[in-house]
Amino acid sequence: MYQDRIIIDGLQYCNWDRAYFETLKASGITAVHATVVYHETARETLTRFAQWNLHFEHNSDLIMPIMSMEDVTTAKATGRVGIFLGAQNCSPIEDEIGLISVMRQQGLLIMQLTYNNQSLLATGCYEQEDAGVTRFGKQAIAEMNRVGMIVDMSHSAERSTLEAIDISSRPICISHANPNFAHPALRNKSNEVIESLANRGGLIGFSLYPFHLPNSSQCTLEAFCQMVADSAELVGVEHLAIGSDLCLNQPQEVLEWMRNGRWSKAMDYGEGSSSNSGWPDALPWFCDSKGMENIYHGLIRQGFSETESSQVMGENWFNFLQDGLTPVS
Amino acid sequence: MYQDRIIIDGLQYCNWDRAYFETLKASGITAVHATVVYHETARETLTRFAQWNLHFEHNSDLIMPIMSMEDVTTAKATGRVGIFLGAQNCSPIEDEIGLISVMRQQGLLIMQLTYNNQSLLATGCYEQEDAGVTRFGKQAIAEMNRVGMIVDMSHSAERSTLEAIDISSRPICISHANPNFAHPALRNKSNEVIESLANRGGLIGFSLYPFHLPNSSQCTLEAFCQMVADSAELVGVEHLAIGSDLCLNQPQEVLEWMRNGRWSKAMDYGEGSSSNSGWPDALPWFCDSKGMENIYHGLIRQGFSETESSQVMGENWFNFLQDGLTPVS
Repeated sequence: MYQDRIIIDGLQYCNWDRAYFETLKASGITAVHATVVYHETARETLTRFAQWNLHFEHNSDLIMPIMSMEDVTTAKATGRVGIFLGAQNCSPIEDEIGLISVMRQQGLLIMQLTYNNQSLLATGCYEQEDAGVTRFGKQAIAEMNRVGMIVDMSHSAERSTLEAIDISSRPICISHANPNFAHPALRNKSNEVIESLANRGGLIGFSLYPFHLPNSSQCTLEAFCQMVADSAELVGVEHLAIGSDLCLNQPQEVLEWMRNGRWSKAMDYGEGSSSNSGWPDALPWFCDSKGMENIYHGLIRQGFSETESSQVMGENWFNFLQDGLTPVS
Repeated sequence: MYQDRIIIDGLQYCNWDRAYFETLKASGITAVHATVVYHETARETLTRFAQWNLHFEHNSDLIMPIMSMEDVTTAKATGRVGIFLGAQNCSPIEDEIGLISVMRQQGLLIMQLTYNNQSLLATGCYEQEDAGVTRFGKQAIAEMNRVGMIVDMSHSAERSTLEAIDISSRPICISHANPNFAHPALRNKSNEVIESLANRGGLIGFSLYPFHLPNSSQCTLEAFCQMVADSAELVGVEHLAIGSDLCLNQPQEVLEWMRNGRWSKAMDYGEGSSSNSGWPDALPWFCDSKGMENIYHGLIRQGFSETESSQVMGENWFNFLQDGLTPVS
């Protein structure tokens, strides 16, 4: 039964409010990885954490903060949705290695090393040249490994991603991206990346963001599940999960903050274009509280067992995070 | 036996290094409240926390971080010194109420509302006019009460202190100051303050900073213990503790940062003077690893029972913190 399973969405960036927390609860989701910052500095990141503390205080009947997988079990048992926070970029640590342990203590459980562009740690997927993981990047990965902060390479370039997989002493994730074989895109990943990731115990979360999918907003549930099945063929079901990249109810200015941050004077359209600059249309089968349940059943229709479908829908995230979030003692 | 007791020093600001952590361990102290910032902004406070994380990582055989009183018990059981962090000023929260929960999560267990000067929250003890707790101050106290962050009024002015005692729904502390009846000083406290504090379940930690003592650096152990005895007469032994204000091995520039922060172009001498601008000479009976043990035995010679001396030397802090650090559920 879907309702009995641990369901985890490995990436959302919705406009968080009580109405949406009610939608989340109705969806049967156990826990969600919520993006806390895109380009915010350390100081600005504190304000974002403070805003989440207010969400937790005012909506304690619907959501609770996740600091370890024990909290996910508590969330499931108490009928609330667990929220764990991550950064889509390394801006919260600025140029300071010591801020990794500080941000981890604050509840930053996952951090991308890059967001599309070159960062202090590695190269993003939209750069023309990918010089791999930097000197600071190597030290940052080691420190993230030590404190139990998950390395996420969703928006990183190929070489940087392969190097991060290799340098990291613990498995890393690509929380939200799809295989290039399903839909070629700078944000999607080569078979080499996916196989290397899996060989080292890593995990990839399939994205529901239309620009990452074949046929964009017209992608069918069947085509999505076929992509999952083909990936399972490639690396085995235990390395697959969901990271929907769901961005509901966000205004255009948030899209522009994601894409342009403070770095661009010209408008950067990311995966869109000047003639298609807005949010893509949502998938009709992944736009409301039934989304995760639709995929769960879609995978079973595709030939996955209930056990396998449950792995993809949350158990793989649970096991991956349980290992990865434990600090080295 | 002194060695079996829980010994807590409610305020130190030493030059923290491995040699000093060895001194602390040899002293038989169970836990120390260490000042993490004087005037640092939120961002700068993160760097201070990062520096402490490095101390904890590199000296894990000698010290460990304290987030709750269970950790103090662990420290005692494993022969390490527990360190809990606090701020001598409200600068870490800047003008943002939401940073109280953020800093509490980071491990800021105690915060003074003011440091000598007017702050956004209340008035410091060196101002000529004391307008009491401000609008922001009232909200900050309520939020500190909610998250379990201890209100400390050591450097605050009389009216502000009395108001904070009254406004706070939980007992507050004066972590390091002495009674005015023992030595009149702007930093020391009136009987009215000490009695109000105690009536609401609060705690005062006696300071060993020479400028707070009768006869300054010539204060005898007997005179110190007489002050404790007179205070016990006034409010009962359960409200008394130690907050030594010990500042060992610090250079002059740290004293100037404490006194002048970024606010003064002219040199402010704090409790010193232009002809006496340096650190005061340490007390010969409180200058090395025997300091706390000397007081423990001094109190017994003064007529306190072993149980009472143990209360003053640590148990009262333990019980006060155990209650005060628990968040409101």
